[in-house]
Amino acid sequence: MKIETALTKLFSIEYPIVQGGMIWVSGWKLAAAVSNAGALGLIGGGSMEPELFREHIRKCRQATRKPFGVNIPLISKYAEQLVQVTLEEKVPIVFTSAGNPAKFTERLKAEGATVVHVIANVRFARKAEAAGVDAVVAEGFEAGGHNGLDEITTLVLVPQVVDAVNIPVIAAGGIADGRGMCAALALGAAGVQIGTRFAASEESSAHPKYKQAIVEADDTATALIMKKLIPVRLIKNKFYQEIKSLEEKGASITEMARFLGKGRARQAIFEGDLEEGEIEVGQAAGLIRDILPAGEIVKRLVQEYQLAKSRLP
Amino acid sequence: MKIETALTKLFSIEYPIVQGGMIWVSGWKLAAAVSNAGALGLIGGGSMEPELFREHIRKCRQATRKPFGVNIPLISKYAEQLVQVTLEEKVPIVFTSAGNPAKFTERLKAEGATVVHVIANVRFARKAEAAGVDAVVAEGFEAGGHNGLDEITTLVLVPQVVDAVNIPVIAAGGIADGRGMCAALALGAAGVQIGTRFAASEESSAHPKYKQAIVEADDTATALIMKKLIPVRLIKNKFYQEIKSLEEKGASITEMARFLGKGRARQAIFEGDLEEGEIEVGQAAGLIRDILPAGEIVKRLVQEYQLAKSRLP
Repeated sequence: MKIETALTKLFSIEYPIVQGGMIWVSGWKLAAAVSNAGALGLIGGGSMEPELFREHIRKCRQATRKPFGVNIPLISKYAEQLVQVTLEEKVPIVFTSAGNPAKFTERLKAEGATVVHVIANVRFARKAEAAGVDAVVAEGFEAGGHNGLDEITTLVLVPQVVDAVNIPVIAAGGIADGRGMCAALALGAAGVQIGTRFAASEESSAHPKYKQAIVEADDTATALIMKKLIPVRLIKNKFYQEIKSLEEKGASITEMARFLGKGRARQAIFEGDLEEGEIEVGQAAGLIRDILPAGEIVKRLVQEYQLAKSRLP
Repeated sequence: MKIETALTKLFSIEYPIVQGGMIWVSGWKLAAAVSNAGALGLIGGGSMEPELFREHIRKCRQATRKPFGVNIPLISKYAEQLVQVTLEEKVPIVFTSAGNPAKFTERLKAEGATVVHVIANVRFARKAEAAGVDAVVAEGFEAGGHNGLDEITTLVLVPQVVDAVNIPVIAAGGIADGRGMCAALALGAAGVQIGTRFAASEESSAHPKYKQAIVEADDTATALIMKKLIPVRLIKNKFYQEIKSLEEKGASITEMARFLGKGRARQAIFEGDLEEGEIEVGQAAGLIRDILPAGEIVKRLVQEYQLAKSRLP
């Protein structure tokens, strides 16, 4: 049973579900498993050097004949090279985030790519549309990892973006099951981007301890911090408590950056250090109770969506 | 066209829509207008002394033959007396918030009232159910005015509360149109509580300048602050900037409370001082573009709900 929207047509996929491109989590294995299940898998370029990124793209192409894409955070020091690799490897779908969509959209589209940009408020949605992107991801305050400064939640953001632009809107942040997917489509989204649910999948390249932390998280487990540097949503562990206490003391940006150091996300997500690492997860972790194959996650999302829709009064 | 859920049965109303009880906003005029339109109007007791509260209840009863209710914030210094008035006046439906539901639920239920308690995380939902309430309002981070400490958004909170309790769940926070209502019901809610949309109604007792501030608010207009005292969502005006700068300097609770003083909410909402007052509104203000009669708001919510549902793929 297909679920057709403007997004399934744009990407030539069966279900309007995108697996978010996540650092240290979404390599070719996860992206291919999601695409093979009829949704759209994304290789997360944010934690990769250009040649590793190329390797993942090639392996993904061997593992699936269905459409897949990549995510390139424009703050990556390799952004320019990642875009170059994307073009050389003729990746059909490119999601960009955390930066100015005007920078690469024209070049990518000239080479035939479908381009999607992630935004967190109405103004940037309009800017992305003006830059020529084919769709936007409207990502709310609930989302894991880096987050917008305006703290607009998915429920409030999505309908405002839908009203403001004429391109398809993909809802992201806070969605982990078919009920959330149904809610997002009711708001006018043409599809959903789901991160944390897929981070806790068998094909996710994250450390088993990180996946277990998602399963164990309850509704109150995460918080958005580091608002002076760059806001990030993570699980409230020892590292969080230390950052929070610095914030409450009124620490400067320099002091915060020095304490943060480098590689905290890798430390938690890839190496499994749940004390000192930055356990980036979305607030929807509270809804996730098991680690499943990615294809099974897609299947359940579709079933739960149909159930939620059929139960509407 | 009715919309039947467990909530419409519980309250004997036509549409699963509750107008939130808001200080300085929801007196008998607004509550009666909402109830007359087939939803549930609430008189907000939080800004009333007991005898004024009684007057509003009596006037509301004269203005509608349909069910209506009251909201009693348990932090009100008059909470005990407001409950007493409610019992004497035989109000059929009582919403309590901001306190321990075990305090009055038994007494209210013994007198035949239907009791609903407002919660902002799963633990308090379970506590409210154990205290014997008939339903809970699950209120997310988006909501205006006083807010929970855990910053859980409506999209993430509602399904977790639905999974955790066996009583009807009313979704609140971030809902201002029928798309949001459809989203909430897709998440498993039995109904919605809507505040800010009704604050910008003709029957709202708020100052015209406050209503206009809602209409003019965009997606980025509000913020949640005063987390050390009691978190409150408001429009980012001069008062907000001052509080924020105190927070960033690491001000103590005592310093914050001294600066805050008394009556800031009244100053903005009732007296229209948009500079020095606390303009409590929800994040969904960005979705509100006009001031309408409350009955018209209910009618549109129902129509938009049906439209959103019919458009689901």
